Amino acid sequence: MFKKTTKVLFIGIFVLSMMAAPHLNLMPVPKDVKLLQGKFFISSDFGIKVKGPYSTRVALAKKRFMHRLSGRTGIFFLLKPGNFSLKITYSKTIKLAPVMDESYTLKIDSSGIYLQANTDIGILRGLETLLQLLSNDKKHYYFPAVEIKDEPRFPWRGLLIDVVRHFMPIEVLKRNVDALAAVKMNVLHLHLTDDQGFRIECKTFPRLHLIASDGNYYTQEQMRDLIRYADLRGIRIVPEFDIPGHTTSWLVAYPELAALPGPYEMVKIYGAKNPVMDPSNKRVYKFLKKFFKEMAKLFPDPYIHIGGDEVNDVQWKASKRIKKFMKKHKLKDFHQLQAYFNIKVMKILKKYGKKMVGWDEILHPDMPRNIVIQSWRGKKFLYEAAKKGFYTILSNGYYIDLCQPTDFHYLNDPVPEDVKLSPEERNRILGGEATMWAEIISPENIDSRIWPRTAAIAERLWSPSSVKDVEDMYRRLEVISLQLEELGLTHIKNQDMMLRRLAKSGEIIPLKVLVQTVEPLRYYKRHEARTYTIFSPLTRLVDAAVPDPPLPRKFRKLVEKYLETGDKDSEEKIVELLTMWKNNHSSLIPIIESSPVLREVQPLSENLSAVAAIALEALEIKKSGEKPDENWLTLAQQKIERAKKPCAELELLIVEPVEKLIVSTTNK
Amino acid sequence: MFKKTTKVLFIGIFVLSMMAAPHLNLMPVPKDVKLLQGKFFISSDFGIKVKGPYSTRVALAKKRFMHRLSGRTGIFFLLKPGNFSLKITYSKTIKLAPVMDESYTLKIDSSGIYLQANTDIGILRGLETLLQLLSNDKKHYYFPAVEIKDEPRFPWRGLLIDVVRHFMPIEVLKRNVDALAAVKMNVLHLHLTDDQGFRIECKTFPRLHLIASDGNYYTQEQMRDLIRYADLRGIRIVPEFDIPGHTTSWLVAYPELAALPGPYEMVKIYGAKNPVMDPSNKRVYKFLKKFFKEMAKLFPDPYIHIGGDEVNDVQWKASKRIKKFMKKHKLKDFHQLQAYFNIKVMKILKKYGKKMVGWDEILHPDMPRNIVIQSWRGKKFLYEAAKKGFYTILSNGYYIDLCQPTDFHYLNDPVPEDVKLSPEERNRILGGEATMWAEIISPENIDSRIWPRTAAIAERLWSPSSVKDVEDMYRRLEVISLQLEELGLTHIKNQDMMLRRLAKSGEIIPLKVLVQTVEPLRYYKRHEARTYTIFSPLTRLVDAAVPDPPLPRKFRKLVEKYLETGDKDSEEKIVELLTMWKNNHSSLIPIIESSPVLREVQPLSENLSAVAAIALEALEIKKSGEKPDENWLTLAQQKIERAKKPCAELELLIVEPVEKLIVSTTNK
Repeated sequence: MFKKTTKVLFIGIFVLSMMAAPHLNLMPVPKDVKLLQGKFFISSDFGIKVKGPYSTRVALAKKRFMHRLSGRTGIFFLLKPGNFSLKITYSKTIKLAPVMDESYTLKIDSSGIYLQANTDIGILRGLETLLQLLSNDKKHYYFPAVEIKDEPRFPWRGLLIDVVRHFMPIEVLKRNVDALAAVKMNVLHLHLTDDQGFRIECKTFPRLHLIASDGNYYTQEQMRDLIRYADLRGIRIVPEFDIPGHTTSWLVAYPELAALPGPYEMVKIYGAKNPVMDPSNKRVYKFLKKFFKEMAKLFPDPYIHIGGDEVNDVQWKASKRIKKFMKKHKLKDFHQLQAYFNIKVMKILKKYGKKMVGWDEILHPDMPRNIVIQSWRGKKFLYEAAKKGFYTILSNGYYIDLCQPTDFHYLNDPVPEDVKLSPEERNRILGGEATMWAEIISPENIDSRIWPRTAAIAERLWSPSSVKDVEDMYRRLEVISLQLEELGLTHIKNQDMMLRRLAKSGEIIPLKVLVQTVEPLRYYKRHEARTYTIFSPLTRLVDAAVPDPPLPRKFRKLVEKYLETGDKDSEEKIVELLTMWKNNHSSLIPIIESSPVLREVQPLSENLSAVAAIALEALEIKKSGEKPDENWLTLAQQKIERAKKPCAELELLIVEPVEKLIVSTTNK
Repeated sequence: MFKKTTKVLFIGIFVLSMMAAPHLNLMPVPKDVKLLQGKFFISSDFGIKVKGPYSTRVALAKKRFMHRLSGRTGIFFLLKPGNFSLKITYSKTIKLAPVMDESYTLKIDSSGIYLQANTDIGILRGLETLLQLLSNDKKHYYFPAVEIKDEPRFPWRGLLIDVVRHFMPIEVLKRNVDALAAVKMNVLHLHLTDDQGFRIECKTFPRLHLIASDGNYYTQEQMRDLIRYADLRGIRIVPEFDIPGHTTSWLVAYPELAALPGPYEMVKIYGAKNPVMDPSNKRVYKFLKKFFKEMAKLFPDPYIHIGGDEVNDVQWKASKRIKKFMKKHKLKDFHQLQAYFNIKVMKILKKYGKKMVGWDEILHPDMPRNIVIQSWRGKKFLYEAAKKGFYTILSNGYYIDLCQPTDFHYLNDPVPEDVKLSPEERNRILGGEATMWAEIISPENIDSRIWPRTAAIAERLWSPSSVKDVEDMYRRLEVISLQLEELGLTHIKNQDMMLRRLAKSGEIIPLKVLVQTVEPLRYYKRHEARTYTIFSPLTRLVDAAVPDPPLPRKFRKLVEKYLETGDKDSEEKIVELLTMWKNNHSSLIPIIESSPVLREVQPLSENLSAVAAIALEALEIKKSGEKPDENWLTLAQQKIERAKKPCAELELLIVEPVEKLIVSTTNK
C-alpha cells in the first residue's frame, strides 16, 4: 500500500552535488540536486505558463508564488500575457491521501525554468523548492542553474496541534498550514477534543460544542474553509477525537456516556483525568455512530484519529456493571476492554468509509492491520507495531512541546539503517508527526514553539537518511526561519512584542540580551515548578523565551573551537559576547525595577553577568599561562553551580561552555 | 435625536485634576478625572462581581479583562468564588445604535473598585479605562485611587477600512475591532464594494462575490461572526455598498445594470473609473431592492452606507436613453439624476428598516433629513450639511491613508468653538471617522497605518474639546500604542519583520536606524511617483516605514530646545543621535549590497549620513563662536536641498531641524 522505493542509488550523487553547492539553502534537502553553471535572471517580464489539466491548487499556487517572489524582490511584475519564464507541466490532479505522488523535477538554465511533475501536488512541492533557490548578486535576483529530482522518503509527514488546552483561532492554523507547505509537510493533525474542551461544532449533539467549549470551537463552515485552505496547499487535515479517555468534555455535555454517573465539570487543570466512556454501554456506540457519521462527512481525509491514549481505569475498576460485562465477554483486562471498544469504533468508521489512527495504546492483536499506530511512548512501540503488521507513524522524539533542541529531533530517524526490521516492516513505517501540545502555550507563542524546529523534522521525514549534517541543518534553519515570516508566522516577531509588554516600553535591549541566553525548562519540569491551569498567564519571560535559541549554541561552538585550536578570531568573539553579558545586568536593573512581573528573573540576570565575568577572568588566567588561584576556582565553581539551577522556569544555556573554560585553566 | 449635553461645567475640574495627575496614561482622556490619595493593590485574590441583568457583553468582557490583567502583571489569579475586588453595576443591556448611553463612573479607593453605568456598553468603556489605570511600584501592581465620570463628546466615532483595494482577512478586522474598543471608538465602517472587487457573499446575486472578488470575499457566516464579535465589544459594523459609481465589480457580474452596454473587466489599477449604474433603468432598482433586502437582514445596524462619491458622468453623458430620461423627469443635471437615484435607494432602505449614510455628494435638497452625510471633501461641506438640516460625520482631516502627522488629525476638531453654527446645527454633527483606504497597504502593514494615530482621533471624538495638549497626547500615545500589541495588533512588530525580509537577515539595526528617520510620502504623492496596481509589491522600505515616527519628532524638539535655551542635556542627545546617523551609512552598505531590493534607498541613506555630518559640523561651529565659512554654508545648503528630495517614495524627516541648526550658525 505505502510504496517506498529505495534511494540508495541517489545518495552518492546527492552528497557530491551538495558539496559542489554549499550555499544552497534548501530545506528539506531534495533527494537529488545538481548545481550547474549559469543563472536565470528575474526581471519584471517574469511569467508562468501552466500545462496540465486545470487544477485550482496550481492556479492559486502560481498567484501565491508571484506574490512571494514580488514581495522578496520588490519587482513590479508586468504580468503581460505571453511572457513565460517558468514552464510548469503536470499530468493529473489528485485527491489528497497518505499514498500520493509528490515527486517533481526542476531544471533551471539561463534560458528558463522547467518544473515537471506527475501530479499537481508535485508542482506545489517544486514551487517551494524554486522559491528557496532565489539568489542574488549585488544588483539582480536570479535562480541558479540546477537539476533537481525530488521525492519524499516517507509519505506521512505531519504536525499535531492541540487546540483544546489553549484554543487556537483559525488564523493560527492557517498560517501554520502555510508553513507546513513551505517545508513540504503534508498533514495537519488536529487534536480537537480532550478533558478541557470540545472544539468542533457538532450538529447532531450540539451540547458538545455549546456546553463543553467555553465558546471556543470551530464552526463547521470554518473547518470546511480550513480543509479547503489546506487542500489547496497539499496538506491533509486529520481530525482526532480522543476516546474513551480524555473525554471529560464529552461527559460534561452527555454524562450518560460515562462509566460512572455524573454530573461532570469542565476541567481547568492538566494531567490525565478519571472520567472515561463506558464500553459496556450500547448507547455509547449508538452515540458514536451518529457522531462519526457527521464527522466523516465533514472531514474528507480517509483517516480519523480516535486517540486512545492514557485511558485511566479508575472508573472502569469502580463500575460493577463493567466488571460484569468484562466477565460475560471474557475480557481479561482493561486493555482487552479498550480493544473491544476500539473494534466497535473501527467498524463504525469503516461504515463511513474511514480508517483508524490511534496512539500506541490501541495496538492489540485483535485489531485489523489497516489501522495506523502513532507511537508516542518510544520507538520500541513503533517497531513492535511494524513487526505485528500495523502501519505506524513516529511521534516519540518529535514532542516539540518539551522544548528540546532541534538536533535532537533532527537526528531522530524513524528507521535508522541499523534497525532490525525486514523491508516489509520498514515500509509499514509511514513517517512521523511533530506534536504541539498546548498546556502552556498560547496563540501568541505557539509559532515559536513549532518553528523553526519543525522544519528540521520535516527534513528528517522528506530527505534521504544520509542528510544529517547538524551544522549545515542549523545554517539552513536560520534562513528558512526568516522566510517563514512572509507567511505570517509570528515565531520571531512575537518575542519582541512580549518583551515590550514585560518592560512596558520599547526599550528592551537588555531584556533581549537576557532572553537570548536562556530557554524554557525542558520536558515536564515547568509543570513541576508551579501549577498551571487554563487561566494561567503565558506572558512571562519563560513564555517569551524560545527552545534552542541560536546564540548560546554559537557561543558553545566558539568556545569549543577556541579550546581546541586557540583560534584568535573565536577568542575575540567570545570576549565580545562575555563583555555584553557581563555588563547586561546593570542595564536590566532599571527595567526590572519598573516592572514587578520581571522581579522573578533578577537572579537569572545576576547569574548571567556573574558567569560571564568568571569566564572573562578564566580567559585572562589562560592567557597569563599561570595556574588559577584555589579560592578563585572555588568561587567560580560556586557561581557556576548557582547558575545551573533553573530560575523563573528558565535555564541559562551558557553555563556549560563557561564551565569548560574554567576547567581549561587548570590544564596546563 | 442625537442629544449632547454641554460639558462646560466639567472642563474646569478636568484641567485641574489632570494637572494633579500628570502620570495617568488615559486615552481618550475622560470627561472628568479626580486623582485621590491611595491605591488598590492587585493580588492573586482579585475577583469581579457583576450586578445587573445578564449581558453576554459584560460576561465576556470580564473574562477578557482578567486575561489582560493577568497577562500584564503575570499574576496567577486564584479565581476563588467570593473574592470581589471590582464591583460592576449596571441597569440595562442595550442594542447598539448611534444614540446610546456609553457613560460610566469609576471609583477606586484602597478597599475596592466600583464601576457603575446605566448600560452594559458603559461598563465596557469603563473596563478599558480601568486597564489603562494599571500602575505599579517596584514590587506591586495597583490601581490608583480615582473618581472618574465619563461620557463621549460625540456619539459616532468610527474607522473605515477599505477591504476592496486590498482584501483584509477577517482576523485583521477582528484585531482592529479590539483596538477600536480599547480607545472607546464604536463604529467599524466596512467599504465592501468598489471597482476592484466585491467583498461580501450575496446569496441572491452570487455572481457578485463569485465573479467579481477574485475569491477574496467574506462569507455571510464570517460576517455574522464579525458582527457578533464587534457587538460584544460595543462596536457597530456599518457596511458600505458604493453606488452608483465605483461599481465596476457589480457590472462585471451583472453588466445589465450599467449605463452603457458591457462587458466589463475587473479593474487592477486605481482612480475613479467610468462604469456606473443606470438610474434610468427600472431593473437596477429591482436588483437593488432584492440586494438590500438580503443585506439589511445580514447587517443589524440601523444604517447602511451607499457611498455615492465621485460618480463619473462620462457614461451618463454618452447614453441617449439617460438623456431622454432626464428630460422626461425634468432632471437638470447629473447631480439631480444622482439625487433621483438616491431617493429611490433611500426608499428601498426604508422599506427594510434602514437609514442611509453617504458621502458628501449625496447631499441634495430633495433628500430627507434623517440621512447622514459623511464629509470627505472639507469641513465646509460638513457645516453646509448641518445647516441644511442633515446629520453629518467628519472624515476630512481624518484620512489616515495620506500619512499625515498625528497632531494634524488630533487638532482637527469637527466643531471648533468658534465655528458659526447654532446649537441645533452643532448637534447634527454626530462625530467622525478615520478612513483607511487600501490602495497601497496590505494586511502586513495596515495596522501601522491605522495605529497609533487613530487613538488620537478617538480622543478628539470622545474627550472634551479643551483636551488638546499635543505634547501630552504624544506622551500618552506611546503608552497606548504598546498596550495595543496585547490585542494582536501588528503595527509595531511587523516593521522589524519587513526589515528582516528586506535584509534577508536578523541583523537589521542599520536598516532600522534609517527607517526610523523617514516616513512614506504624504498625500497622493506615492501614486505620482510610480504606477501602483493591485499586484504591486508592498514590501519595500516605504511600506515598512510608518507615518509620523517618534524619533524625528523628538529630535526636532531637542533642536528647538537647544536653539532656544542652549540646554546642555539636549545638546548631548543631539550629538548622540547625529553621530549614530552619520555612522549609519557605512554599516548599511553591506546590507544594501547583499539585497538588490534595497538599492533604491542607498541615496536616502547617504543623505541621512551627510545631513547628520553637516549638523555635527554646525554644532562645532556654533560652539566655536565663529562665523561659518561661506563655502561650507553653500555646500551644507546643497546637501540639505538634495536631502529634501524624496527618495524611494520616502521623505527624510530630520532635514528641517538640521537646516535650523545650520541657519543658527549665521546668527551671531
